[in-house]
Amino acid sequence: MVDQTTSRGRRRGRDRETAGTRSQLPEQRPFAQPRLLHGPTELASADQIEALHHASLRILREIGIKVLDDETRALLIAAGATAHHGQMVRFDPEMIDPIISTAPSQFTLHATNPAHHLTIGGDHLAFGSVASAPNVADLDHGRRTGNRHDFQNLLRLAQSLNSIHFTPGYPVEPVDIHGSVRHLEATFDLLTLTDKALHVYSLGRQRNIDAIEMVRIARGISDTQLDQQPSLVSIINTNSPLTLDVPMSHGIIEMSRRNQIICVTPFTLAGAMAPITLAGALSQQNAEALVGLMLTQIVRPGSPFIYGGFTSNVDMQSGAPAFGTPEYWKTAIVGGQLARRYNVPYRSSNTCAANAVDAQAAYESMYSIWGAISGGTNFMMHGAGWMEGGLQASFEKMVIDADLLHMASAALDPLVVDDDTLAFDAIAEVGPGGHFFGTAHTQARFRTEFYRPLISDWRNYENWADAGSPDAAGKANRLVKAYLAEYEPPPMDETIKQELTDFVARRSAEGGVPVDY
Amino acid sequence: MVDQTTSRGRRRGRDRETAGTRSQLPEQRPFAQPRLLHGPTELASADQIEALHHASLRILREIGIKVLDDETRALLIAAGATAHHGQMVRFDPEMIDPIISTAPSQFTLHATNPAHHLTIGGDHLAFGSVASAPNVADLDHGRRTGNRHDFQNLLRLAQSLNSIHFTPGYPVEPVDIHGSVRHLEATFDLLTLTDKALHVYSLGRQRNIDAIEMVRIARGISDTQLDQQPSLVSIINTNSPLTLDVPMSHGIIEMSRRNQIICVTPFTLAGAMAPITLAGALSQQNAEALVGLMLTQIVRPGSPFIYGGFTSNVDMQSGAPAFGTPEYWKTAIVGGQLARRYNVPYRSSNTCAANAVDAQAAYESMYSIWGAISGGTNFMMHGAGWMEGGLQASFEKMVIDADLLHMASAALDPLVVDDDTLAFDAIAEVGPGGHFFGTAHTQARFRTEFYRPLISDWRNYENWADAGSPDAAGKANRLVKAYLAEYEPPPMDETIKQELTDFVARRSAEGGVPVDY
Repeated sequence: MVDQTTSRGRRRGRDRETAGTRSQLPEQRPFAQPRLLHGPTELASADQIEALHHASLRILREIGIKVLDDETRALLIAAGATAHHGQMVRFDPEMIDPIISTAPSQFTLHATNPAHHLTIGGDHLAFGSVASAPNVADLDHGRRTGNRHDFQNLLRLAQSLNSIHFTPGYPVEPVDIHGSVRHLEATFDLLTLTDKALHVYSLGRQRNIDAIEMVRIARGISDTQLDQQPSLVSIINTNSPLTLDVPMSHGIIEMSRRNQIICVTPFTLAGAMAPITLAGALSQQNAEALVGLMLTQIVRPGSPFIYGGFTSNVDMQSGAPAFGTPEYWKTAIVGGQLARRYNVPYRSSNTCAANAVDAQAAYESMYSIWGAISGGTNFMMHGAGWMEGGLQASFEKMVIDADLLHMASAALDPLVVDDDTLAFDAIAEVGPGGHFFGTAHTQARFRTEFYRPLISDWRNYENWADAGSPDAAGKANRLVKAYLAEYEPPPMDETIKQELTDFVARRSAEGGVPVDY
Repeated sequence: MVDQTTSRGRRRGRDRETAGTRSQLPEQRPFAQPRLLHGPTELASADQIEALHHASLRILREIGIKVLDDETRALLIAAGATAHHGQMVRFDPEMIDPIISTAPSQFTLHATNPAHHLTIGGDHLAFGSVASAPNVADLDHGRRTGNRHDFQNLLRLAQSLNSIHFTPGYPVEPVDIHGSVRHLEATFDLLTLTDKALHVYSLGRQRNIDAIEMVRIARGISDTQLDQQPSLVSIINTNSPLTLDVPMSHGIIEMSRRNQIICVTPFTLAGAMAPITLAGALSQQNAEALVGLMLTQIVRPGSPFIYGGFTSNVDMQSGAPAFGTPEYWKTAIVGGQLARRYNVPYRSSNTCAANAVDAQAAYESMYSIWGAISGGTNFMMHGAGWMEGGLQASFEKMVIDADLLHMASAALDPLVVDDDTLAFDAIAEVGPGGHFFGTAHTQARFRTEFYRPLISDWRNYENWADAGSPDAAGKANRLVKAYLAEYEPPPMDETIKQELTDFVARRSAEGGVPVDY
C-alpha cells in the first residue's frame, strides 16, 4: 500500500529544497497499520472471562436495559427479547449467541484516499486522533472554547501526522458553527482537509443520513458500493447504567442499515455509572455492549461492529474521572479479551486527566497506550491530543502522542533474526574492545535501523542547556507550527468538491437539522 | 510480611496528628513485591530464541572472549575452555550447559530489615532506585556534581518510598569522599540510612570483601549464615564487545565464593559496542552474559546469578546513547526470554535520556517500564530517579518514578471476579440512569478500591489554574521536601552500629583501598 500523503510530502520537500526553502519537518515513518504479531495479553483467566460473560447475561435476563426508542424496543422484542415495565427490555441468554454470531471479525474501513483504507480486526491496530473535546489549547494562546479555526488546524495536523490513521470525530467542537448545520460544515472540513477515514456523531437520524451521503459523494461511489464498503464509523455511548437513548438507537439503525460501522462504548466509570469493583463495571460494560451488538445484527446481519471498552475509575475523593490509571490499564486489557470472546474488533483509547503537557500527561497516556496495545485494540480512539479527561484537545499533545504511537508501531515491527541481522561477521571483524560504528554492516544501516523520534531531545546536558533547556512541550509547539506552515490539503476532484459544496448549501438552505436553540 | 517502615510511618503520622503537626505525606501502598501472574510477553518466537542462543554459542566457540585476569582465565580453562592468542578464551558449546545448570532459578536477597527481604526470580518483580549517576539535580538548586549530602538525601528518599525495594548502588557518586575510603563510608550510609537490600561495586577485590563484612555485621549474623543467605548484589558490566576486565572478574570471584549475588550486564549499545541490528546485539549480549554465568558457577556451583539485559541503541546522528526507545522496549522483552532460556532471574532497567523532568522523561521511562515488566524483569535497576542516560539522578524524578512503579504494582494486582466484585445486587439496586456512589457496595470500598497516586493532579482545569497551574515536576519537588522533612532512620541495634563504625574507622586507618590519585 503506497502512502500518497507521504509521497507527496517527500516530493514537496524536494521541490522546496530546490527552491531554497528546505522543509522544517523531520522525516516520519510512512502511514501503515502496526500488527500485534505476538498476540494480546491474557490478563483475566478463561474462567474469569466466562464469569464476566455469564454475569452480563444475568444482568440482561434479570434486570434488562432501558430502551427509550419505541422502534428499537420493537426490533429487539421481535427478535425474542421481552418488554417490561418502564421501557425495560430483557433478554433470554439463549437468544444472544445466534444473533451476534453474524458480526464480522474483521472488515475494511474505507477512506477517501485508498492508501488510507484500514483493516479493522484481527491483529491489526489503527490509531485515531482526539475527538469531541469542548476546549482546545496550545502553548501560545492557552485554553479556549472550541471553534472552527482550531478545529480545522487540528484536522490539518492530524492529516500531517502519519501515525494518525483516522479522525474519530471532531477534534474539538466547532461551537461557532450553528448546531443546525454544524455536522454539514464539519463533515465538509473533515472530507476536504484530510483524506483519512472519519466518524459521524449519532445525534439524530438526519445527521447520520447526511454524513453517509457526503462520504458517498467524496468517495465518488454509488449507494450500492457504499452499502458494500463500510466508510464511516459512529460511536454509540450507552447512557450507563443500562440505558440506550433515542439518538443512539437511531444512529445504530441508520448506520447498520447502510452497512456502516457502529462502535458501542458504554461509559462505565467504576464508582459512578458502574460498580466500584472492576469485575462489576466490566460485566455491566459487557451487558450494554451486547445489546448494541445485537441491535446492529438485527438491523442488518453481518454489519460491522466494534466492541468499545472505556471503563475507568473516578477519584473517589472528588468524583472526578481518572484516566491512565492502573484500573484503566486492567480494564483496557480485559475489555479486549471480552471483545475477542465475541469475535469482534475492539476499541480502546489513549486517555489522560492532565491539565498540562507535562510528565503526568505523558505517563497517563503511556499507561493507556500500554493497556490498549496489550489489550489488542484494533481501533484506538483519542490516540493523539486528548487532555483533561477529554475536556481539552491540545495541539502539542497531538504531536507528542503521534510520536508515541509511531514508537509503538516501531516497537511492534517484527524482530528479524537471520544471518544478516545476527551479524556474526561484524562481531568477528570488530573483536574485543573495538567499535561497530565504522563497520560496513553498520554503515549500510545507520540511517534506517532505528526509529527517529519527533520529540525526544538526545543532546547531552551541556548542549541542551546552551540551547535554552527546551522541554518536550516546547519542541512539540515548534513542530505544530512547522506542520501547519507546510500543510497542503489532499487532492480532491473538483467536480466532487463542487458536489459536496452544493450538498452542504442545499441542506443548509433546507435548515439543516432541527435544534432546540 | 509486615512492613516495619510503613508501620512506623503510620505511627509517626498519628503521633504528629496528636501533637497538632499532621503529616504532609500522602498514604502509600505498603512495601510488597508485585508478581507477574499473567506471565511475560513472548515477543520472539521459540525458534528465534534458539537462533540467538546458537549465535551466542558460535561467538563463544569461534571468536571467544578476551579475559584480562590470569586467575579467571585459569578457572575457565580448567573447566574446559581453551586459551588463544591475546588473552582470548573460547568455549566449546558442549561445556556450557552442564556448568550453568547449577544456577538457581530463584533465591532470596536478604536485607537488614527482614520485612525487606526480596524473592528474586520466578514471577516476582523487585524495583531498585537509580544508581551510579555522576550528577544530581533538583528544581531548587539545579544540576551539580555528586556529593555525600545529596547521596544521603537520595538514600533517605529511597528509604521513604515503598515501591523502591532495594538500593542498587550509589544513587549519585559521592565524589567528596576520597576514593580510598568511599566504599566504606558509602556502605555505612547505605546500611544506616536505609534497611533495604543493597549493592557493592566490583572495583577491586578488597571493596567486595569490605562490603560483605559490613553487611554481615549489619545483619548481625555469622559468616556461615551469610554464606547461606545472599545479602548483597554486585553488577558486573562486561567491557563490550567481548571483554571481561580484571576488577569485574575479581568481583565475580569474591562474591560468588561467598554465595552472594552476581548480575552480569553486558553494555551492548547497538551501533556502538554491538552490531546495529538487534539480533546481533542480543546474541553478543547473550554470549557475554553466558561467560559471566559460567564463571559464577565454576567459582561456586549453585551461587545466585541474575542475567542482565541492557541492550539499547545509539542516536546514529550524534552517537549519543538513547533509552526508552522502541528498540530498547524490544530488547528488554527478548532479554527476559533469553534469561528464562537459562532458567535464571532477569534484570532490566527504567531508563530515559531526558535532561528535564518533562513529558520525554515520563514517556521514555514508561516505554522502559513497559518493556521491563512485559519482559518479566525480576530485578529492575534504576527504577526511580534515572535521567540523562544515567548521567543524572533527579530527586523529583525519583518520586514520579516511584509513583509509576506503584501504579504498575497496582495494575498487576490480581483481577478478582467473584459474586462480591461482580456486584449484581448493586447493579440491580441502582438500575437504569442511577448512580453508584451512594450504594453500600461503593461506600464499603471507596477508600481502598483504587490506587491513589502521589503525583497525578485530577482537579478540574479551573481549580488547577486557580492553584497556579502546577505541573508534575513541581508537585514532586514539594513531595521530596516533605519526605526528607519527615524522614526517620530505620532502627539499628546500637552495638551493631558501633561495630560498623569501628570497622569503618579501622579500615580507614589502614588506608582503605589503594587508588591511583
